[in-house]
Amino acid sequence: MNIIEQARLAKTASRTTRTLTLEQRNTVLLQFAENLVKQADHVISENLKDIEEARRNGLSEAMIDRLTLTAGRIEGMAEGIRQIADLEDPLGKVLDDRIIRCGIHLKKITSAVGVIGIIFESRPNVTADCAALCLKAGSACVLKGGKESYRSCLAVVDVLKEILKENGIDENAVTLAERPSHEETQRFMECTEYVDLLIPRGGKKLIRAVVDHAKVPVIETGAGVCHVFVDASADQDMAEKIVINAKCSRPSVCNAMETLLVHKDAAAAFLPRITAKLAENGVTEIYGDEKSCAVCPSYQKADEQSWHTEYNDLIMNVKTVDSVEEAVSHIETYGTHHSDAIITEDDENAVYFLNNVDSACTYHNASTRFTDGFEFGLGAEIGISTQKLHARGPMGLNELTTYRYLLEGKGEIR
Amino acid sequence: MNIIEQARLAKTASRTTRTLTLEQRNTVLLQFAENLVKQADHVISENLKDIEEARRNGLSEAMIDRLTLTAGRIEGMAEGIRQIADLEDPLGKVLDDRIIRCGIHLKKITSAVGVIGIIFESRPNVTADCAALCLKAGSACVLKGGKESYRSCLAVVDVLKEILKENGIDENAVTLAERPSHEETQRFMECTEYVDLLIPRGGKKLIRAVVDHAKVPVIETGAGVCHVFVDASADQDMAEKIVINAKCSRPSVCNAMETLLVHKDAAAAFLPRITAKLAENGVTEIYGDEKSCAVCPSYQKADEQSWHTEYNDLIMNVKTVDSVEEAVSHIETYGTHHSDAIITEDDENAVYFLNNVDSACTYHNASTRFTDGFEFGLGAEIGISTQKLHARGPMGLNELTTYRYLLEGKGEIR
Repeated sequence: MNIIEQARLAKTASRTTRTLTLEQRNTVLLQFAENLVKQADHVISENLKDIEEARRNGLSEAMIDRLTLTAGRIEGMAEGIRQIADLEDPLGKVLDDRIIRCGIHLKKITSAVGVIGIIFESRPNVTADCAALCLKAGSACVLKGGKESYRSCLAVVDVLKEILKENGIDENAVTLAERPSHEETQRFMECTEYVDLLIPRGGKKLIRAVVDHAKVPVIETGAGVCHVFVDASADQDMAEKIVINAKCSRPSVCNAMETLLVHKDAAAAFLPRITAKLAENGVTEIYGDEKSCAVCPSYQKADEQSWHTEYNDLIMNVKTVDSVEEAVSHIETYGTHHSDAIITEDDENAVYFLNNVDSACTYHNASTRFTDGFEFGLGAEIGISTQKLHARGPMGLNELTTYRYLLEGKGEIR
Repeated sequence: MNIIEQARLAKTASRTTRTLTLEQRNTVLLQFAENLVKQADHVISENLKDIEEARRNGLSEAMIDRLTLTAGRIEGMAEGIRQIADLEDPLGKVLDDRIIRCGIHLKKITSAVGVIGIIFESRPNVTADCAALCLKAGSACVLKGGKESYRSCLAVVDVLKEILKENGIDENAVTLAERPSHEETQRFMECTEYVDLLIPRGGKKLIRAVVDHAKVPVIETGAGVCHVFVDASADQDMAEKIVINAKCSRPSVCNAMETLLVHKDAAAAFLPRITAKLAENGVTEIYGDEKSCAVCPSYQKADEQSWHTEYNDLIMNVKTVDSVEEAVSHIETYGTHHSDAIITEDDENAVYFLNNVDSACTYHNASTRFTDGFEFGLGAEIGISTQKLHARGPMGLNELTTYRYLLEGKGEIR
């Protein structure tokens, strides 16, 4: 079926999903988790077909690893779904409740978005995760994954569709796009009639393509050029611990540090020790400005592009700055407003940094790696927003909802 | 100056505006209101030049009326600005404040969006209104009005720029685009680097053009195909009062009713009386479905397009429906999710309607005309959002802000 037709059916289904009770939604989720594990053999056999085709097409082993489902990974997916079932109901929360001046009783309550389109790459576990989050948030979803994972994603979605049918719920509440052409995907991203929100999940190129071509509102996620600024007064042991954690604990993720900024008064002592420690952790490719290169001759010379780069790898930049103001100015110029940290014992500088860095998450004396839905206590997350509208930073269930006004009158006219 | 360069300067200015204290922002606003009145003669003489040119170009008298500034209208603009100064600070509100599991102290606070682009038509009072709202919300703004009002808008903006300079604030916090070409405007709407949010203010065509061409996030405002459903059990006196108010009190606005839905059991009694009353109020062009036309032969036959039309005029549709379910289904199919009302004495039907109509504002026994920032007690409004992301319904100052997380640690790593 054409993806636009799928979206149309999802729109119709969304009229049902948004009125399901919490119990109905949770029942579906728990049965979904259960059946996913029960039918793991089928899902894995479909996954094997994807993997065979991927190998024939010469996909890299890293890509094939991302594509691969095992019994353990399926149990992980099921556990994720159970956790979503455990979360508090994001719908029907009363945000405002009062009598307005004309006498009407106004209530502002959280409600479902409608149809959410998720455009992702090749990881089939995204399917279960997103479908479960959208359903819990009362929305229907249209999932458009990479072609190479189609059979795996379909097997997962079919498990959920079966449960929906058994519970008398429109099975179009979850839909996997049937390998749409580039042109069809384009039309889908323009389809404001049936789709209320698009969330791209994947690398920078995918996100850029969606933002550039969509007419449906998009939430940008994931691009993270994150900074750690080590101030003159920083506790250097703490700074070392945080920099190593921010860069090395998981360099491929968006909340990992890409650029280390060091105050000029700390550079001579801090740069040699952190450089040695980074090398121990596998970071040997470092791009520095002139002053930093003078202290650490092992650095390569950074250029303008370096400061903009999200390496997602054991590579980074180092810049020596004259002041907290210069650090902030660098972050505002080159950052992506994701997560940035200052390490300092100087409260005035900390306050200046927190007030003037305009990022989703700004840290004082902690690692940028904490920017995460689970760490923030939001439960599951669908991504980390780097834009300013609707949601910023980790997006949990609440950020997958909208609100509406209900107004109860007694014949009031204006 | 090129509009992109103007946006770049606004971005720099936004680093200042977002940190201004409430007192600084209010001082600027009050001086702006004062000087606008003091310099009314200059503003009016610039406005006269716009009007002369508009007449030479053959603009309609209705357009010229919208363009015209008088001493009274300028006093009205000043009063609007003073009211904005009076509003509570939308910035720095603490939305969340707790220790997360790793021990970090998390605070979620409201903060400025950055640079807001407003694209509007020919009413010069929009300039003062939008600039004041954006500044109060801590954001810089780039205003792009219709060419025919350029001199008038510039005169208004210059008053504010002067005040900004006198207060030592970057005057690029407010900028009027210098009659950009179509192509430049297009580039502006794509300029995610410097612009954080676009708000189109104007007719349907303008809004559609912005949504279709922008890459910067847009908030759609204003399109309103609003419905009133008169149920079988409705108090027909109340229904008459509400229908007349919803249609006739100000037919040109987006919260006016376009389609009247009537339950089949009420149609025979209600349609003739409301049709007579509507005629008294100037509504003589009515498009009806077959059943309604059978009751009121004065109606013209509605076609598919009628139900989608926002007349903004003394023209409307009437449809007879079999049930509250059919009424909801019609609204979900043809409405714009703006404002819809049910008139009924049946609580079960009221609850069904409120739960199943997915509009920004859903009314029971009251007129749709109340959908308005002032009426809702939000103070000034910048528009009425008909999309589901970020803001829905009347957008006041709070809806012109975003939030960010501040995280205070003691060396935590993940």
